[in-house]
Amino acid sequence: MIKIRLVCVGKLKEKFWVDAQNEYIKRLQKFCKFEIIELQEKNNTSSVTETLNKEGFSIIENLSGISFLFDREGCLVTSEQIAQLIKSNVQKSSVLTFVIGSSCGVSDQVKEAIKNKISLGKVTLPHNLARVVIIEQIYRAFNILQGTSYHK
Amino acid sequence: MIKIRLVCVGKLKEKFWVDAQNEYIKRLQKFCKFEIIELQEKNNTSSVTETLNKEGFSIIENLSGISFLFDREGCLVTSEQIAQLIKSNVQKSSVLTFVIGSSCGVSDQVKEAIKNKISLGKVTLPHNLARVVIIEQIYRAFNILQGTSYHK
Repeated sequence: MIKIRLVCVGKLKEKFWVDAQNEYIKRLQKFCKFEIIELQEKNNTSSVTETLNKEGFSIIENLSGISFLFDREGCLVTSEQIAQLIKSNVQKSSVLTFVIGSSCGVSDQVKEAIKNKISLGKVTLPHNLARVVIIEQIYRAFNILQGTSYHK
Repeated sequence: MIKIRLVCVGKLKEKFWVDAQNEYIKRLQKFCKFEIIELQEKNNTSSVTETLNKEGFSIIENLSGISFLFDREGCLVTSEQIAQLIKSNVQKSSVLTFVIGSSCGVSDQVKEAIKNKISLGKVTLPHNLARVVIIEQIYRAFNILQGTSYHK
């Protein structure tokens, strides 16, 4: 079974985001081993750049297999394209890592380390909502690949 | 105070979506009169086209002021552009109506009736999650216009 890792910075606070996330994680279990790696936010440092550098170091340490970064400036994709991305890359690696930055983004080092950059749109989403959207898209991708009725 | 109406088809089922929605509606109250108009899903009709036509009739009946349709094929916008859209249109009308279709989309009549089509991205979102994303974007738009720290 393929392993999907979601690396993100910070914890979900509100119960409704935790419950929404857990609903999709539960549903994902029939398709893959899904793991969330929640890195600590480093927001007590002196500047945004320093914060992003510290978080970036931690993100890079946690990359494994083939990695993808969600980045508004990345390649704008459809749900079908995310599904194809998973399909073509699991032929090369049994572990795929998806990365979401913090509310301030990610450091330049992370952008350099991860060549595959995916954009879901041009709008800014709060970190917690973005995480739920991305987990839903991963769940949708597996449904597309399996041809279920979830994706019309 | 300006009035923002969100016309959508179907009800939110899961408690976590209702709670997420209500959190943003609560926060929106300091910026506008926000109203959700939940139209009945017409999914017991014989074909998708017929369903969309019936729902579309109901959507068109509920348009008021200047209307915007969320449509994947519409104009891809940033959060800042949504804010500018609200700003420039409230000078012409004190009521703005945003429309989200059902999981099958909207009828051609609705697409003809609403000239302003906004796209948040190319991915397919479930109706409930799309609704939460859109309410958050409306909340974010007001924060952008007021220059608060919510939008970095």
